[in-house]
Amino acid sequence: MTSRADAARLDEQDPLAGFRDRFVIDDEDLVYLDGNSLGRLPRATRGRLLRAVDEEWGRGLVTSWSSWVDLATDVGDRLGAAVLGAAPGQTLVSDSTSVNLYKLAVSALDARPGRTAVVIDVGEFPTDRFVLEGICAARGLEMRTGDGLDGSVGLVVCSHVSYATGERLDVRATSDAVHDVGALVLWDLSHSAGAVPIELDAAGADLAVGCTYKYLNAGPGAPAFLYVRSALQTQLRQPIWGWFGQRDQFAMGPVYDPYSDLRRFQVGTPPVLGMHAVDEGVALVAEAGIDALAAKGAALTAFAIELADAWLAPLGFDVVTPRDAQRRGAHVALRHPDAWPICQALVERARVVPDFRAPDIVRLGLAPLFTRFVDVWEGVDRVRRLVEFGDHKRYPSALGRIT
Amino acid sequence: MTSRADAARLDEQDPLAGFRDRFVIDDEDLVYLDGNSLGRLPRATRGRLLRAVDEEWGRGLVTSWSSWVDLATDVGDRLGAAVLGAAPGQTLVSDSTSVNLYKLAVSALDARPGRTAVVIDVGEFPTDRFVLEGICAARGLEMRTGDGLDGSVGLVVCSHVSYATGERLDVRATSDAVHDVGALVLWDLSHSAGAVPIELDAAGADLAVGCTYKYLNAGPGAPAFLYVRSALQTQLRQPIWGWFGQRDQFAMGPVYDPYSDLRRFQVGTPPVLGMHAVDEGVALVAEAGIDALAAKGAALTAFAIELADAWLAPLGFDVVTPRDAQRRGAHVALRHPDAWPICQALVERARVVPDFRAPDIVRLGLAPLFTRFVDVWEGVDRVRRLVEFGDHKRYPSALGRIT
Repeated sequence: MTSRADAARLDEQDPLAGFRDRFVIDDEDLVYLDGNSLGRLPRATRGRLLRAVDEEWGRGLVTSWSSWVDLATDVGDRLGAAVLGAAPGQTLVSDSTSVNLYKLAVSALDARPGRTAVVIDVGEFPTDRFVLEGICAARGLEMRTGDGLDGSVGLVVCSHVSYATGERLDVRATSDAVHDVGALVLWDLSHSAGAVPIELDAAGADLAVGCTYKYLNAGPGAPAFLYVRSALQTQLRQPIWGWFGQRDQFAMGPVYDPYSDLRRFQVGTPPVLGMHAVDEGVALVAEAGIDALAAKGAALTAFAIELADAWLAPLGFDVVTPRDAQRRGAHVALRHPDAWPICQALVERARVVPDFRAPDIVRLGLAPLFTRFVDVWEGVDRVRRLVEFGDHKRYPSALGRIT
Repeated sequence: MTSRADAARLDEQDPLAGFRDRFVIDDEDLVYLDGNSLGRLPRATRGRLLRAVDEEWGRGLVTSWSSWVDLATDVGDRLGAAVLGAAPGQTLVSDSTSVNLYKLAVSALDARPGRTAVVIDVGEFPTDRFVLEGICAARGLEMRTGDGLDGSVGLVVCSHVSYATGERLDVRATSDAVHDVGALVLWDLSHSAGAVPIELDAAGADLAVGCTYKYLNAGPGAPAFLYVRSALQTQLRQPIWGWFGQRDQFAMGPVYDPYSDLRRFQVGTPPVLGMHAVDEGVALVAEAGIDALAAKGAALTAFAIELADAWLAPLGFDVVTPRDAQRRGAHVALRHPDAWPICQALVERARVVPDFRAPDIVRLGLAPLFTRFVDVWEGVDRVRRLVEFGDHKRYPSALGRIT
């Protein structure tokens, strides 16, 4: 099962194959395996943004606020239902993932007074670690990177799918373990939202944040989301007391009196264009269905691993991502000592866009809405030929950003 | 000088009259006097957003980050130069005004340990008061609403132009007074940026935040800006330690090691589409010139006050905005006990869009880039006729949002 014809046959059998046409793709030679960093542009989003600009902003002007004011919760509800396994009233589209992490982490620690530690893995995404590091520094808390779950812990932050390795955690098992010591758990869903099923309500998750410009295809810097379990909403009070969290916003009253529900986690004026883009991205995921997307993601990653074992292992690549499809997301991480020069060469010479993650990971993101099996075949084949030929050896080994 | 012909003559003499054509205006009967709540859509912004969507996101995909990553500081520098009187390296486009307020207020208070109070006027914009109230609650500080500047004060927050009354403060005089007690001053420029000259560097301001969707015409929920005086940047450390503040972002290192310059005030992934819209809005202000805009704003507001004195005073309206043009911005606040029903009736029956500010203010925003003298004449004339006729009496007096 490693020929291009095998890949083409898998595409023919793919029930989601038609979704590729829902995206703007005008360069068929480019093998884009980075939908987990920045998702492609959905055709519907282009039209939706134009309508928002022309009709809502240009024509409706300030009176359009009557529809904009509920976007954060309405789009949040749709995102929660299609992507997070969340009943209405628990998902909000707002701010950036980092700001949402801060809001929820401070809220959680305020609700666990006397607890002196937080836990986050040393391999977690940098912004998660940095945000927690800042909070711990401000509050004099211990930041445990790794194990050490005990009664002194107030909060655990972890990714559902690791940005680096692609490993997926069991939300229920982790949440149960955290709850056993009386702490709260805050999930970062950036690398799983839209790629694999997430059952926040059923799994007993407390809090979550995530990104919309990856598998949700909402565009560069689109607003992030946050989730707060209903039962926790009135107990938690986030630290940034902005006017969009105020119960009677336009009374402009003398003291902060926040909503008792999810809306208390809003801060400032919501980014309207970004909200529209999130809504369209979520609609595509809802239409395809998260179970079908996860099944295709499992098949794409299995195919990539099979090709990597056959072609890339002899060239010094290790597959870091778990081989059990239930334990991974929709990207495959390949470790190689020359990962950085290889990634640069792939972009500039081979027309493959992977992602590099320091210090030594080539990451292949196989977004199931628009990635074909032939893209996987073509991408891995180009990696093989490039490294065999040694094309990457002219590229610097000092780390930087792919441009 | 109160006839429509007078107004038309003023428009003929207006050197900025041509800028109106740079905006999308397809409903000439609508008198839009709310550019200080949501500015109109610039024609160039529509094209710029389409290019960003099609070329940068759709075609360039993740490789476009090479240009996106500097937007926050590049657009910030242009905004600082054209609008704020700020030398490069001090203005950043990021987050919402409320989040920026939080970041800078916490930074400032961390830099003034031992100070036990903050000062903010009771009439300040709600989000400013609420954000400070939250910080004071978390840190056990006293929040003084009104006078009381002494050696216990660490931070003063004030608006350059009041959202409610339109009164403009003297940035230098206030900054000097705050510095005399060893405190820092944080300006909210939301209602002055793009309307009147602001000389942050020359006036010795420390910190500032502001909104881009008012006189800067960047669209609903466009990202806000912040300013940190160069000399303060390394001393201040903001509380939300996101990965865009990290010096060597893609090394994904183990500890937070922020930039030593303005970029340490970045948090998460910047909202790219909004940044483009800010850039276009700023370019229009730069082209017109802030002094010319301020001169026109002074003339428009003077004309509105003249008409209000002649026509509206007998109907129970008070002009709240200062009569000295140097002491006001580009909006005029009219106090009336029926302000809320009047505003509703103006929108729904008279095709005038003012803004209502609780409890009793009708606010006429006269954005100098696109507001004509005939718009002022028509707007005030329609207010007069509506209130004389009593059209507003059928509208509810209970407060809410204009829809």
